[in-house]
Parts: sequence; structure tokens; C-alpha cells
Amino acid sequence: MKIDVNSDMGEGFGVYQLCDDEALMQVVSSANIACGFHAGDPAIMTQMVRLAKRRGVGIGAHPGLPDRLGFGRKEIAFSPDEICQQVIYQIGALQAIARTEGVSVSHVSFHAAMGNMINRDEALARQVMQAISHLDPALIIFCQADTIIERAAQSVGLRSLTLFLADRACDAAGRLVPRGKPGAVIKEEGAVRGRVRQFLQEGTVTSIEGHRLAVRARSILIHSDTPGSLTLAKIVRSEIEACGAAVAPAAEVLQQ
Amino acid sequence: MKIDVNSDMGEGFGVYQLCDDEALMQVVSSANIACGFHAGDPAIMTQMVRLAKRRGVGIGAHPGLPDRLGFGRKEIAFSPDEICQQVIYQIGALQAIARTEGVSVSHVSFHAAMGNMINRDEALARQVMQAISHLDPALIIFCQADTIIERAAQSVGLRSLTLFLADRACDAAGRLVPRGKPGAVIKEEGAVRGRVRQFLQEGTVTSIEGHRLAVRARSILIHSDTPGSLTLAKIVRSEIEACGAAVAPAAEVLQQ
Amino acid sequence: MKIDVNSDMGEGFGVYQLCDDEALMQVVSSANIACGFHAGDPAIMTQMVRLAKRRGVGIGAHPGLPDRLGFGRKEIAFSPDEICQQVIYQIGALQAIARTEGVSVSHVSFHAAMGNMINRDEALARQVMQAISHLDPALIIFCQADTIIERAAQSVGLRSLTLFLADRACDAAGRLVPRGKPGAVIKEEGAVRGRVRQFLQEGTVTSIEGHRLAVRARSILIHSDTPGSLTLAKIVRSEIEACGAAVAPAAEVLQQ
Amino acid sequence: MKIDVNSDMGEGFGVYQLCDDEALMQVVSSANIACGFHAGDPAIMTQMVRLAKRRGVGIGAHPGLPDRLGFGRKEIAFSPDEICQQVIYQIGALQAIARTEGVSVSHVSFHAAMGNMINRDEALARQVMQAISHLDPALIIFCQADTIIERAAQSVGLRSLTLFLADRACDAAGRLVPRGKPGAVIKEEGAVRGRVRQFLQEGTVTSIEGHRLAVRARSILIHSDTPGSLTLAKIVRSEIEACGAAVAPAAEVLQQ
Repeated sequence: MKIDVNSDMGEGFGVYQLCDDEALMQVVSSANIACGFHAGDPAIMTQMVRLAKRRGVGIGAHPGLPDRLGFGRKEIAFSPDEICQQVIYQIGALQAIARTEGVSVSHVSFHAAMGNMINRDEALARQVMQAISHLDPALIIFCQADTIIERAAQSVGLRSLTLFLADRACDAAGRLVPRGKPGAVIKEEGAVRGRVRQFLQEGTVTSIEGHRLAVRARSILIHSDTPGSLTLAKIVRSEIEACGAAVAPAAEVLQQ
Repeated sequence: MKIDVNSDMGEGFGVYQLCDDEALMQVVSSANIACGFHAGDPAIMTQMVRLAKRRGVGIGAHPGLPDRLGFGRKEIAFSPDEICQQVIYQIGALQAIARTEGVSVSHVSFHAAMGNMINRDEALARQVMQAISHLDPALIIFCQADTIIERAAQSVGLRSLTLFLADRACDAAGRLVPRGKPGAVIKEEGAVRGRVRQFLQEGTVTSIEGHRLAVRARSILIHSDTPGSLTLAKIVRSEIEACGAAVAPAAEVLQQ
Repeated sequence: MKIDVNSDMGEGFGVYQLCDDEALMQVVSSANIACGFHAGDPAIMTQMVRLAKRRGVGIGAHPGLPDRLGFGRKEIAFSPDEICQQVIYQIGALQAIARTEGVSVSHVSFHAAMGNMINRDEALARQVMQAISHLDPALIIFCQADTIIERAAQSVGLRSLTLFLADRACDAAGRLVPRGKPGAVIKEEGAVRGRVRQFLQEGTVTSIEGHRLAVRARSILIHSDTPGSLTLAKIVRSEIEACGAAVAPAAEVLQQ
Repeated sequence: MKIDVNSDMGEGFGVYQLCDDEALMQVVSSANIACGFHAGDPAIMTQMVRLAKRRGVGIGAHPGLPDRLGFGRKEIAFSPDEICQQVIYQIGALQAIARTEGVSVSHVSFHAAMGNMINRDEALARQVMQAISHLDPALIIFCQADTIIERAAQSVGLRSLTLFLADRACDAAGRLVPRGKPGAVIKEEGAVRGRVRQFLQEGTVTSIEGHRLAVRARSILIHSDTPGSLTLAKIVRSEIEACGAAVAPAAEVLQQ
């Protein structure tokens, strides 16, 4: 069995860095690279693509809202057309950088508020997926199972890869607990290890209220801005290997 | 004989507009579309691509330095790698928007300070052209004849289309008179008409000092931010047609 | 009787201009100057301050959300502290420019989404007014009558100047019809003239549904980005003078 | 004897942080606070002002060029008027935040490329100092001794405080070795300690070529983005105290 480990990468800007991208790139199998709107710039994107190429890591676009000050975490009421255009612009910028380096973009993972907005609005999700399939029908959409994004991707023939969020709590309905609420971000190494092990062995997760929920997922996400993300990603990887599975990028996971 | 008429387009931002892009798109045969760094945003770029598609206008990327406040007119000492990455990022963003709309980007025309920096530095020009040819070897480079950019494009096998600037004066050495110097920008309709006619009939231009210089060019450029640019572009078009030539986009001009 | 005529000014950015600020400055008695967040930059702000000084026009800060792409018209969920800090930052920047030119800032008029957010939340409005009164208790707050902003200003001892919006429709409850709804922006010269005359003669306005409402206001606002704003502002001024009142800046209106 | 210890602070942006500002604020006596152009935002500026107020640290404006991507380190050819306006805008924004918090701005320290541009051009330096003295004649200008900035400040009656850069090498002419050249940034604790001790005991510094030069300075600067800046600042402080001097903010140093 193959499982993907992914993280948001290249979320620095100019002199700023958010995590040790170079070290993290040695642990993940897929990198979701910020595309210059909520974070990232052409230099960082190029560096990420080169690091990913060297390590055989799958290259993904991580588009966000055009809002550096808020790091793309605040919703802004752009029209569906505008959201679509922003998504396509950002994927295209990364595709060009990848192509110039002799590799290609394999997947798309939406950032924060942009992802929430798309995942709440079926018409918007359909429009965004339609645009992405026109751009490149081979792109894989990263999303949680049974979501509006997953269904929209399927409806236009795009493949999707389902995510297990190792460092973020969910509620009894399987929804993400919003950042800022107590317990939303899981930083403790033992807790992350336990969650990953439970997911790998039982295919379940325990909600913040204590309910055991079934999880359908083929990729495990560690947020790079979670404190200790590098260590957490290593824990995820070692747990996957300990249970006899192999860590592999999205395209390989979907081919098995 | 076919001659291209091109202009920089989509150089607004958000609520701001710099010229009547919609009207101008009905006059030119090639549109150099700002890509979100010195001007432009995903919404305007998409609008430009749609207008160009409808009119059969050639779609070009018009990359500039990341400097909205200075409209990309001030040089900023980015490294050659950074300039390259900025060029590729911007072309890619426009390519993705074009591809999503079912068309493709045909050419690249550098904006202001970015163009000046590339056109002054052989090593940088070579590196930028190499990167563009890796991205898409079919892209046509817009440039003046006998320049560093033209030679760099040729050296990596990229085609170029030579420009005649109808609304900007040149000196006896054929170099552009810098914006801000008296007489640099030619706004008077009769003057533009006379320059274009002389170029079409004799293949020459009269320098600001009064010398007659030979000009090699297959495309005529009107800057969209020159006052009265729409009227000037119409004059260029009517002069071309009056002398029995046809107005056509870059790719057609190069195929004849 | 003295009445103020005010307009939002200096809402360009870099090469972009939104209206003919120089001409408009000869018509208004108060200028609400964009402060570099939704629009404006230090050069434009300085130019506006110099023009206002020369014409004896009252200088006001026109703070907005930090969002050039959306021109400050989209709400962004900043915290109350952040909104406060953004308001103070922007007023301070303009105060410094004014002081360096030997004049001072007389009033504050909130822009678009920032104004709507403050005007909907009593606690936020109180916090913002408290901060402004700490900064400079002589600042006059521009607002519509009987609003959260007016009450918050009074509660901390700040003076306010009530507005009549000559170019924007209101509903039966006296609330602004949102931009984008049909009839929201009133551009027709006769309509603006009629509204201003009715306000001056009867102290009433007719709502979009046709109801006559009492209006309490001592300043008339023309939005500079309304098409034909310069002509509309001249109409406002001539109507005021035709009815025997004098046009004067906020501070003079409040002193009478 | 009193000596000031200063550092550039609040140079983060949104989610990004450049150093542990809170810890550093407990070591310095003067904080040069970024003002939202090259770095910083209203929220960070407010936090810095509150921390400085609590610790009795002198509050300074640290204006830079409007260039977040380049962190204000790249020169951009703004006109003298534009540079002046940018300086005044930024100081004013910080003054307003400080005033709202019940404190005031004591000094100005120019950032990177903006500082280099001003320090190279006597006319520009004079114009900037004139504008600052119109804004607030009590502001203290931080600069190195015998520089264009020092002389320009004196010429308009502004007080200046001379700097010793503990973590940056100088050449035989006393000029800063440019960042990026080997040995330009001094990170080694022993080396910093030795330089500070030599300065305090002998009033000299050893240039990168090995020459001993006299140094006139009343404040010691540690760059907060130098790796280990917090430890280096503590070393500076302990060396000052070890030689029997007192650490004090700029205004106190100048009054003694």
C-alpha cells in the first residue's frame, strides 16, 4: 500500500521564512507550493521546485487569496469568476516555473480561506474544477473525503486525493475545528503519532468531542506552520513505514 | 505584405484603468498583456484574453518588475536569477489563463525597466531567453532590431519580431529618448502619421536631432498610455492599409 | 447658514488617477484624502494637502481597509484592534504630511467597507472613536445622522458633521442602497440637482421607494468616482449658493 | 557615562516574524520600529510601542523604501520629493500610534537602501532633514559620525546620536562593508564582545583590513536580523555595564 505525505511549502516571502522548507522537503512525498498570493514569490517557488525535483517529491500548486497581510486566512468576498481567475493564474505561474525546470505540476491543494470558500459553495467549486480541467485535466485535486470539492472534481472528471489532517482536530461531523479554538491545532508529538497510527490501523479518527469517525484518506497532511512541523512530518513518515506501507507522491498513490 | 500593430494592454489594476482597452483591442493585431506585477490582475488579464480571442488578436505576455507604485518604470537591482523567475512566473500565469479560455500565448514583450535591464546585459538576456525557450520554444520575442534582446533570442533559437515605435523619439544612434526628456513621447497625430508613413514608404525614421536612419521592423507599437493612444493606433492601422499592406498578428507576419 | 461640500480625493495610486482631483479641489470645501491603504500614496497625499492648503479646503483623512485590489470595498474580517490600528496609522500619516506643509488635519471620513464595518458594530465604533480622541480630540467625524458612528463619536466627546449623500440613493429606512443594486448611484445631473434642492429647501430626501424622509445634515458629499463627479460637485455648490447659504469647511460649519 | 543600545524592531509582517522582538525589547534602550513600508504593519507597530512603553525604551521610527519583497535593501530611484514624502508618512504613522498609546516618538533611524540613498546625496539629506524638522524639531537623528546625514541634521538644527555598529565590519575609510561581502556581518559572539570592549575602552574599531580607527559614537547598534541578535545585544549591554557606563535611551544620552 502507498500513502502520500504532504505539506504546504514555500510559504515565506522575500526575507521571511515560515519553516525549514529544505529539511521538510526530505520528509514529504508531495509539496503544496504557495504561488505568490497569500505567500511565496517567484524566487521561493523556483527553489521549492528545484528541491522537489531533486527529491522526487510531487509538485503541487497551493493557491490562496491575494492577501499577504492576512496570509490568506481571512475570507474576502471575491466573485466566483475572480476566485477562478486567481486559481488559474497561480497554478499557471507554478506550471511555468516547473516546466522551465523540466518537471511538471501534479496536483492542486487550496489554501485556507480560498479552500473554505470553494468547499462551501457547490456552484463555485464546479466552476473552479471546470477551469482547472480546461487548464490541465491531469491535475489531481487534494481534498478531504465527502466534501463539495471532492464531488465537484469528480463531476468534471478530475482525479482527487483524499487527505487526513494529522495536526488539526475535527468535530463529530468530521469538520475541521477552526484555528483559534482551543485544541484546534495538535502540536504534541505523541498525539500526532497516536492519530496517525489509529488512522493507519483502523481507518478512524477521534473527534474533539471523543467520537470515533471513519476516515477515507490516501494522503496525510502536516501543516508546515504548525510548531515542530518537521518533527511531526517525520513521525507521520515513520508511522507509515512502521505499518508496512510506502510513502509515495499523489500520482503513484492513485496508480496503485 | 503583412505588418503587425501592437500595444500594451490591460495595464489597469482593480478599479483603475489606464486606457480604453476594449476599443484599442479592435485596432491592434497583437496585445501585450500586463501580467500582474507592474500592472494588471487575474480579472483584467482574463478580460483581455477574451477580447483578444474574440477579435483574433495575438496574445502576448508583457512582464514587468514587481512594482505597482512605480508602474515598473524604475529599475530595481534584482539578480539575473530573480529577473528570470519573474519573467517565467508572469508568462506562465497568462498562459494558464489563455489555455483555460482555449487559446494560447504567442509572444512576449518586456515592459519598461525590466526590458531596459535585459536589453543592456548580454548574459542576463541570454539567461532569460534560455528560460523562455525551455518554457515554450514557440514564443515570439518582441524587440527592436539589432539589440541585445534580438541577438539573445536568436542565439537560443527563439523567433523575434522587430518593432517600430510610432510614438517615441529616438536619437541618432537609434536609441529611445528617455521618457521625461522633451520630445520623447510623440502625441501629435500628424507627427505619428508622418513617422509611420515614412517608415512604411522608405523604411526610415528621423531621429530627434534630424538624422534619417534605416529602420528594420515588422510591427508598429503604440503605447496605450500615450495620450490619445486609441486615435494614434487607428492612424497607424489606416496608414498600413493605405500603403497596401495588411495588418496581421505576429505569428502571421513571421510566416509570410 | 454655512454648508460643507466634501468629496473623497487623492484616490489614485502611482500612475493611476480616479478623477480630476485638481479641478475638484476648486469646488469642495472639505477633501477626504485617501491615506495609502485602499488608495493613495505619499506623493498623491502631499499633492492633495498642498492643493487643499492653497484653496483653503479642509483636510480630512479618508482611511480604508488595506486592500488596493478591491479598493477597500470588500469587507475583511480584521479584529477590532486591527481596525483601530489601521485607522490611527492612516490618520497619523496624513497628519504628518499636513504638519510638514504647515497645515493640519481637521476631520476623518471612513471609506467604504471600513466605514460599514465600524457603523454596524457599537463596540468597534466606540473603540475607534476612543482611539481617535486619544490621538487628537479636535478631529471632526464625518458621518450620517443617527448612526452608530455619530453616537460613538458623541459618547467620547468628538464632534461630528452629518452628511447628505447627493449621489447615492437611500431606502425607506434611510440606509444607503448598496452599490451594484440598480439606482444605487445617482449620476444624472438633474436628479442630483433636484435632490440637493429638496434637501436644502425642505430638509428631506426621497427614498428609492418614493418615501419622503427628513434628513439632518450639514455637509453634502459627492463621490469623486461617480461618473461626472466634477460637474455634480459644481451643481451642489451652485444650489447651495442659489439658496443663500455659504459653502465652508467642516470646522467653520460647526462654529456658526 | 550613558550609552544607548538600539536595534531595528518590529520588522515582521502579518504572520512573519524576523526575530524575538519581545525578548530583544528587554535588552535595548532604543527601538527603531519598522513603519509598514519595507516591513511592519499597524498591528506589529502597536505591539512594539506597547512593549517599548512598558520597558521605558525609546521609540524610534525606522522608515524604509516601499518594497517588502526586497525588504528595503534594494535602491529604487525615487525622486528626492518622493523619498521625503515616504519618510514623513512613515514617521507620522508611528507618531499617531505612539500618541494614541500615550507616548511619543523620540528618534528616526533610516533603513538600509533608504539610508544609503540619503547618506550619499547632500541635497536629499538636507531636504529630508528640513522636512523632519518641520514635522517635529525634537526628533533625534540616528547616524554614523561624520556622515552626510549627521551634517544635514546639524544644518537644520536637529540633534543627532552617533552609532557604533557592533555587528558590521567597516573598511579603512570607516565605511560599512556591503552585506554579501565576506566578513561584512559579524555574528561570532567573541568578535562582537571584543569590538564593543575596544570601542568602550579605546574609542576605536579595527577595520576589515586590520587598521585601528577612531570612532565617535554614543549608541551601539545590533541588527535584529543578525543571527543570534538577542545574545549579541545582551553581550553589548553587559560590556557597557562592565565598564561602568549606564545603558539609557537616546534622549537621556544627549541630556547628560
